[in-house]
Amino acid sequence: MAHAATGIVEIPSEAMHLLEGRGFAHVATLMVDGSPQVSPVWIDHEDSLVTFNTAEGRLKERNLRRDPRAAVSVTNPENPYENLLVRGRAVEITTEGAEEHIDALAKRYLGVDEYPGRQPGEVRVIVRIRPERVRHNAP
Amino acid sequence: MAHAATGIVEIPSEAMHLLEGRGFAHVATLMVDGSPQVSPVWIDHEDSLVTFNTAEGRLKERNLRRDPRAAVSVTNPENPYENLLVRGRAVEITTEGAEEHIDALAKRYLGVDEYPGRQPGEVRVIVRIRPERVRHNAP
Repeated sequence: MAHAATGIVEIPSEAMHLLEGRGFAHVATLMVDGSPQVSPVWIDHEDSLVTFNTAEGRLKERNLRRDPRAAVSVTNPENPYENLLVRGRAVEITTEGAEEHIDALAKRYLGVDEYPGRQPGEVRVIVRIRPERVRHNAP
Repeated sequence: MAHAATGIVEIPSEAMHLLEGRGFAHVATLMVDGSPQVSPVWIDHEDSLVTFNTAEGRLKERNLRRDPRAAVSVTNPENPYENLLVRGRAVEITTEGAEEHIDALAKRYLGVDEYPGRQPGEVRVIVRIRPERVRHNAP
């Protein structure tokens, strides 16, 4: 369902659990030469904005700052034949709230209060992806 | 390790189990407008060629015929922090052996002798990806 006013394509409510569970997402971005790159991330959402947390300077962060087009695939770890596919673009990359966000993701994915993977000098960022195409496969 | 003669970058032997298990891979390709697309596949290999099986006319097959550049991420379902990332290009898309290949994958992934997802009129193809960049994360 598309909102003409915002350009956001909604994610079906029955697919939201894939963005709220412990299943990893795979995010595809574009390299400087236009070739695709894909890597796993912890995944989250704010209503129909798909969000993930990375660090400044990482390949996908640099890619998305240059070209915001992205694709996300999230598979249900309990049933790998259930999948959510999203194509869209990064509409925001921000440090605001990113430290709290990575801790919240660590809580959900690892059951710990604090993200254990912090590197010295690392600056965390939240990436917000606005969906333009959404497909939910739920056999 | 690169073979100057072939341009193939080898996949480390300790990462091969990721291409021989039941973990899904996510394959990224390029849409006609150059934006990325990503979807889950069963994954396989022939030595250091990464292979998967799809059907003629599917989005990723059409994308790879137009632009062979691809990226593949395979996560260990037993330990999602172990991951193999491959960037490269589709050097072959062929119907030859593809029916037997999808049955072999169904055997490995589902434990059945015959792929149960065949659609009427569907033509299966094997896609062979030659790796150009390989990264194995094994924490």
